[in-house]
Amino acid sequence: MSDSPENSDARGSEAKPAGPLSDLLIVDLSRVLAGPYATMVLADLGARVIKVEQPGKGDDSRHIGPFNAAGQSAYFSSINRGKQSIALDLKDAAHRETFEALLAKADVVVENYRPGVMEKLGYGWAALHARFPRLIYAAASGFGHTGPDRDKAAYDMVVQAMGGIMSITGHPGGPPTRVGTSVGDITAGLFTVIGILSAVHHRAATGEGMFVDVAMLDGQIAILENAIARYAVTGVAPGPLGARHPSITPFAAYACADGHVVIAAGNDALWGKLCDAICAPELKDDPRFATNATRTDHAEEVAAVIEARLAGLTAGEALALCEAAGIPSGPLQDTEQALNHRQVRARNMVIQTGFPDGAPLTAAGNPVKLSAYPDPTTRPKAPRLDEHRDAILKELGL
Amino acid sequence: MSDSPENSDARGSEAKPAGPLSDLLIVDLSRVLAGPYATMVLADLGARVIKVEQPGKGDDSRHIGPFNAAGQSAYFSSINRGKQSIALDLKDAAHRETFEALLAKADVVVENYRPGVMEKLGYGWAALHARFPRLIYAAASGFGHTGPDRDKAAYDMVVQAMGGIMSITGHPGGPPTRVGTSVGDITAGLFTVIGILSAVHHRAATGEGMFVDVAMLDGQIAILENAIARYAVTGVAPGPLGARHPSITPFAAYACADGHVVIAAGNDALWGKLCDAICAPELKDDPRFATNATRTDHAEEVAAVIEARLAGLTAGEALALCEAAGIPSGPLQDTEQALNHRQVRARNMVIQTGFPDGAPLTAAGNPVKLSAYPDPTTRPKAPRLDEHRDAILKELGL
Repeated sequence: MSDSPENSDARGSEAKPAGPLSDLLIVDLSRVLAGPYATMVLADLGARVIKVEQPGKGDDSRHIGPFNAAGQSAYFSSINRGKQSIALDLKDAAHRETFEALLAKADVVVENYRPGVMEKLGYGWAALHARFPRLIYAAASGFGHTGPDRDKAAYDMVVQAMGGIMSITGHPGGPPTRVGTSVGDITAGLFTVIGILSAVHHRAATGEGMFVDVAMLDGQIAILENAIARYAVTGVAPGPLGARHPSITPFAAYACADGHVVIAAGNDALWGKLCDAICAPELKDDPRFATNATRTDHAEEVAAVIEARLAGLTAGEALALCEAAGIPSGPLQDTEQALNHRQVRARNMVIQTGFPDGAPLTAAGNPVKLSAYPDPTTRPKAPRLDEHRDAILKELGL
Repeated sequence: MSDSPENSDARGSEAKPAGPLSDLLIVDLSRVLAGPYATMVLADLGARVIKVEQPGKGDDSRHIGPFNAAGQSAYFSSINRGKQSIALDLKDAAHRETFEALLAKADVVVENYRPGVMEKLGYGWAALHARFPRLIYAAASGFGHTGPDRDKAAYDMVVQAMGGIMSITGHPGGPPTRVGTSVGDITAGLFTVIGILSAVHHRAATGEGMFVDVAMLDGQIAILENAIARYAVTGVAPGPLGARHPSITPFAAYACADGHVVIAAGNDALWGKLCDAICAPELKDDPRFATNATRTDHAEEVAAVIEARLAGLTAGEALALCEAAGIPSGPLQDTEQALNHRQVRARNMVIQTGFPDGAPLTAAGNPVKLSAYPDPTTRPKAPRLDEHRDAILKELGL
């Protein structure tokens, strides 16, 4: 920590990235993922985020692995990089005074408790809006603040199951398959950011804050996309399709001699180029494969004829053929390969940040690239629990 | 179409929903999914979106199924509800005049061409910014506007494969598995919205537009989350885990007598409640299952002991036990079940819109619920190609 007098906003010696949201102060009560992911996106765009954590324990995700050798959570640290921390017991009178002084300065409060928790503390939307009319209140909950199931708890896995995405992910006849990343939380986090920024825009015109209510389950419905369209037209709930697209063919992972490649020949012209590239020009005249619709009706035959040709090629050879022909295609990469891919590196999508004790940590960068701002290659580290208490209290004059 | 004089903005007789973005005009050149999904989200929040489509053919997704009996695409219609359409050939001098008149009125232009296409038309960011300094320019491309692979084409499937999400989705040793919805496009669409709204906020302070550059591949890296943290700590790229969480246990789909249920007992207290609920209190004292970390190390044994108890229960019975004990849990629902779930209905996440000819269509609602605005149960239909040409030309005085 620098204690130079100009460091009046208690941000420490590591500069926050400049960004379009640098004028916004976010007070963040949220834990684990949906809320913290939202405030990470806001912080990456320049907002100042103060995490208000439970004394003693802090954000639950401090205690969820993977951990480094020093026992610090990489999960917590990657999502909470660049935020500040103050531990407050919202049932303690002195701590409530501090919290309310923070709210008086804040633009947005974010929480992901079950509905009712904030009301019991006296900090529900109605109470806060009456007292801080410009404050925007964003709630990311499992089921939302309305409806018969509002009081139920949910985690990512629950909404992936209930929202339908697990029913269309996996292989026909195979066991249930979770999307390998927490799309239940992350999608809700992104919609929460969108709600907050919409509310900021509204406030600029009206001077009034509003309540932003995002449910993880709702977010899963919002990304069902093609599955809802198929159900709407056919009345039949779609099942999983393995590694192919439901209505574009060829658009799948295909086996080669030494692995799989993805080929996405999304229109008739690309189909023709693919037939030529894999030395099978006769397929262009096969009536089963004449249009995208007929190819999709015969998706298994399409896979069989493509894989017959790819069987003698390595993935590298197959991709070189596709690339030379201008056919969208790519390798199946694991996390290590993805993070080391030249384009991912060139786009600064792998940045350096730190664990709470300052040990270095690699994390994902910010995918929103803006011409008016630099895209830094580092981010300030994640906070120790209560790390910024003194500086924040001083700033608040408490 | 109403031709009443007050209908000066050519929106037709169906009112656009009021929303926090009602003052924004989006000129949308984008096709298929990432860009159109972004502008759907903006339209759901009140923005006016004018689709500029290729004469004759229009947005490619008009020709991608599923189709209704009249041959109209439900895929196109669900994503483009409530937008207006004008067909413009951007190589034709008169059409370029119309396009430029639209840009002069617009707040944001959105496109998802490959980098370079707009420059060839004379409408790259540098040229437009010089002429329309307040205009925000958002590009959603496969690989982004910088880096060695910027010129390559990508579809959802390609970035799902290259970005690593397919490497952690599916079952150990099983075939490649695509996430069943287009998370490559949709994630990029959501980050594009976030970039646009950040740029709108910046413009309110500075008067200047900016260039927002979002790559589908970057978006996949940004949602890898726990997988990056695991790789950062262990140096080993994680593989797929079927239907369980990588670092929380029990947090998975478990088999019952007649199907599967998801149980997400994310901490020690919930684990204890689960042991009691399934009549296995002795598991609480088993040292293998003492903490979340040891349970995760023994995730297969945890699944075995849970499934041994669930084998005599139906999914409904198992969920009733969990619910009574306050353990986050839920059913595995298909699209039909998800859309008919009482909470999804209560949250207005299933709305009515229409195909271009006006035939009714069910689609996903808006997951961003805002206290200052109503959340309508209907949305104006998707446009016929060039449907709003006359009204838009009249509005522009052309």
